[in-house]
Amino acid sequence: MLKLKRIGLDTHRQNVAFIARTCRPYRPEDFQALKKIEIHHTGDSMLATLIISDDGSIVADDELGLSGPAFDRLGAGEGTSVTIAPAAPPKSMEAVRAKMRGHTLSDGEIDVVIRDISGLRYSEMEIAAFLIASASYTTSREMLALTQSMARVGNRLDWSSDVIVDKHCIGGIPGNRTSMVVVPIVAAHGLMIPKTSSRAITSPAGTADTMEVLARVDLSIAEMTEVVRTHKGCLVWGGHVNLSPADDILISVERPLRIDTREQMVASILSKKLAAGSTHLLIDIPVGPTAKVRDAGEAMRVRKLFEYVGDRIGIDLRIVVTDAREPVGRGIGPVLEARDVMAVLNGHEDAPTDLREKSLQLAGRLLDFDPALRGGTGYDRARDLLDSGRALATMEAIIDAQGRRTPPPLGTLTRDILAPVSGTISGIDCYRLGRIARLAGAPMDKGAGIDLLRKNGDRVEKGEPLYRIHACVKSDFSFAHGLADEDNGYRLDVGAGAPPC
Amino acid sequence: MLKLKRIGLDTHRQNVAFIARTCRPYRPEDFQALKKIEIHHTGDSMLATLIISDDGSIVADDELGLSGPAFDRLGAGEGTSVTIAPAAPPKSMEAVRAKMRGHTLSDGEIDVVIRDISGLRYSEMEIAAFLIASASYTTSREMLALTQSMARVGNRLDWSSDVIVDKHCIGGIPGNRTSMVVVPIVAAHGLMIPKTSSRAITSPAGTADTMEVLARVDLSIAEMTEVVRTHKGCLVWGGHVNLSPADDILISVERPLRIDTREQMVASILSKKLAAGSTHLLIDIPVGPTAKVRDAGEAMRVRKLFEYVGDRIGIDLRIVVTDAREPVGRGIGPVLEARDVMAVLNGHEDAPTDLREKSLQLAGRLLDFDPALRGGTGYDRARDLLDSGRALATMEAIIDAQGRRTPPPLGTLTRDILAPVSGTISGIDCYRLGRIARLAGAPMDKGAGIDLLRKNGDRVEKGEPLYRIHACVKSDFSFAHGLADEDNGYRLDVGAGAPPC
Repeated sequence: MLKLKRIGLDTHRQNVAFIARTCRPYRPEDFQALKKIEIHHTGDSMLATLIISDDGSIVADDELGLSGPAFDRLGAGEGTSVTIAPAAPPKSMEAVRAKMRGHTLSDGEIDVVIRDISGLRYSEMEIAAFLIASASYTTSREMLALTQSMARVGNRLDWSSDVIVDKHCIGGIPGNRTSMVVVPIVAAHGLMIPKTSSRAITSPAGTADTMEVLARVDLSIAEMTEVVRTHKGCLVWGGHVNLSPADDILISVERPLRIDTREQMVASILSKKLAAGSTHLLIDIPVGPTAKVRDAGEAMRVRKLFEYVGDRIGIDLRIVVTDAREPVGRGIGPVLEARDVMAVLNGHEDAPTDLREKSLQLAGRLLDFDPALRGGTGYDRARDLLDSGRALATMEAIIDAQGRRTPPPLGTLTRDILAPVSGTISGIDCYRLGRIARLAGAPMDKGAGIDLLRKNGDRVEKGEPLYRIHACVKSDFSFAHGLADEDNGYRLDVGAGAPPC
Repeated sequence: MLKLKRIGLDTHRQNVAFIARTCRPYRPEDFQALKKIEIHHTGDSMLATLIISDDGSIVADDELGLSGPAFDRLGAGEGTSVTIAPAAPPKSMEAVRAKMRGHTLSDGEIDVVIRDISGLRYSEMEIAAFLIASASYTTSREMLALTQSMARVGNRLDWSSDVIVDKHCIGGIPGNRTSMVVVPIVAAHGLMIPKTSSRAITSPAGTADTMEVLARVDLSIAEMTEVVRTHKGCLVWGGHVNLSPADDILISVERPLRIDTREQMVASILSKKLAAGSTHLLIDIPVGPTAKVRDAGEAMRVRKLFEYVGDRIGIDLRIVVTDAREPVGRGIGPVLEARDVMAVLNGHEDAPTDLREKSLQLAGRLLDFDPALRGGTGYDRARDLLDSGRALATMEAIIDAQGRRTPPPLGTLTRDILAPVSGTISGIDCYRLGRIARLAGAPMDKGAGIDLLRKNGDRVEKGEPLYRIHACVKSDFSFAHGLADEDNGYRLDVGAGAPPC
């Protein structure tokens, strides 16, 4: 028997336990080979990775330390008596090993793997084994089973309505904040659109980061439900809502290993939408030379995977392939992107037309899901709702309902990046501008980022500004303009000032 | 700048760093996405996994904590000023990702991966990615490159002699302690045999665990060299000698994931032998229904892989395929196995004949490597050295040189497992007996294990003992005989007392 102690170390989704090398009731070496232990207390049990401590102030001889998140997950108080035993790898690892040998997994096998992963019974190594084995070959059927198993774990929202619309962009385009225009248009029309979004992981801003400039986004499920019931829409961060948590765990391993397969992406997105109770879904696939999807052939392959799973889980799913040869709007970074969104909703005459137009196209397609609307009138309806100010009013109401915030100021350290020669802009590298904005501090510093002053097709003279970098912290500022000085990400066509082809 | 602090947590081969959530010079969240940081101090740098601390007594706001092994590896004193930065994944992960996509890696790519792994620049997840990607397909050329790259890292022994012999058993057979008989025979003959062995990981005893009953085995390289120069042979634990440390790191991930491919086994064994300076090597492949290699076809495939690599790294390599239908000798567990070994060396009339015969066969093959010996006389020479007591004298000299120890007592908690019916023993499950001996406490309790009283072909009457379990700790004792009661691992042929086929 050991007495439980909470150790104030944040090990996220990993359960970590600490035992003294001089521990009396157990021999720590007994546990070293497998590194994992099973902790038992009154009928409950939990797996944890074991670290041996030589510091009596961390754990005493009769104590079992648990890292903060592990302690909270076990849910027993400090001083509770627990027993420990060496933990065998979870039984479902047999399926993972079969997958490594090239076998196809049954629905049941995938389900047990996903349950064990979401129950934190897998180490990061074991999760990596599952992902890598799956990355080399995943059948459509396995992708479907993965989607369904992931959606079954965690919360499942039920809106008691036949039409719950949602949209999702598979990403990679800076400034692409259409959701913040689409949601108020669709909600103003009266369709329910309970939108959860992610924070940026490797990009300079996610929709959740940008919405957070204007309102609270870390709503609980109860709060989110209340906002949606009243205003038909919301724009919240998915992190507190616990939809498809297995997906979050898989992503936390995929990201550092840069595992990025189409099948895992489709299962990830659709498991979240299924758990969110969506019935009608629009998927935006941006295609461009520096986007995630590079050509029409690849876009078609991705589309077919989405359609295969969508049809079998009962989501009415449509795909739009959009042009992604440059960032959408002008701003890159939370404050700048929120500015663009509000300019479109307010109908400012200098609002970015590409953001407005793309948002109207998407909103129109979503409104076409409404059985009450005459075929082919979605786009016009969307434009009316935007131009009449009804979408803006809905956005303001959603902001108030979620909890209005005063936007933070724009970063005051600025530098204009100038055209090195005269010419016509013929290309903008989305990936590079994203990196520069991120180095400038976005999304951690909401006011950091890039303000695009010129876009594709514009004529610039040598020495005129292409874009402005905003930063809040000096070191970030110099990293960012250092990268821009190396290569500013713009391609200029200098051929006699002719328009680009 | 942060001040370095040593945190008394044993994270083995993982470098783990700790930073306060309220840290002033850095924002801990900046590092969360990739989880790894690079620590810089005066020209040196090291990668570590980052854990955020909410406990000021572990790290203060201006401190960077490093787990014990990481602190020791960095080699800077407490209070040293260091800077940190987010760590990108090692560049060689590009090669791992290519391997995941099915590419074949060049010698150069494998070399950089192995260097990064042994430089602790890979997380366990990343190591798993390399192993799993390799497990699905490794070419012979990749296996060769892996062997050579692993041998290049760490120590490399040079004995300044043309004939340095060694033997290796690919394992899985309890009681198979031939090395402890072979080494003194070969050394007594005058060939150099600097034997390093492993401790048991999942088995009830390794050669190092068993030799430790009689002598110190954790010798440094200098101590080992001295013993070998004086007595021509040694029997030490490989853990302190640092031969092919990359292999140890790979094994620490292969083991919990139970990745067990022929190519990785061959590269692992031969990289250690290459680093140990072996010129002539005998590989023992036991074949049996419960051994690692189950049939002759599989043994031949393994043999060819060993020969392919051996020929290209300049080791004169021979394979012997041995019968593994039952444990070798009578004892299973360090004290019991050491008893069998010394009985053979002492020429006791009740010494296990199978251990004696197998050891003589192997020693004979090794002696045949000696250019000075007439072809085909190795076996006779080995028998002479054993029967004359010269091998025993050499063993006693090696024990004294390494540091003689008083053997610990045999476990006093004993239980005889009885034949449930009368019959002739027709099979002994090596795997199951290994598990029972391990549950009884071996190798942690050196005196724990199993003493086999009957073996294949013996006739037993109902109620007569098959084997005796020895344990030192009550809970282990009941686990072990519980498992034996469920299935004792013996197969009895009850058919009219006929001899087994």
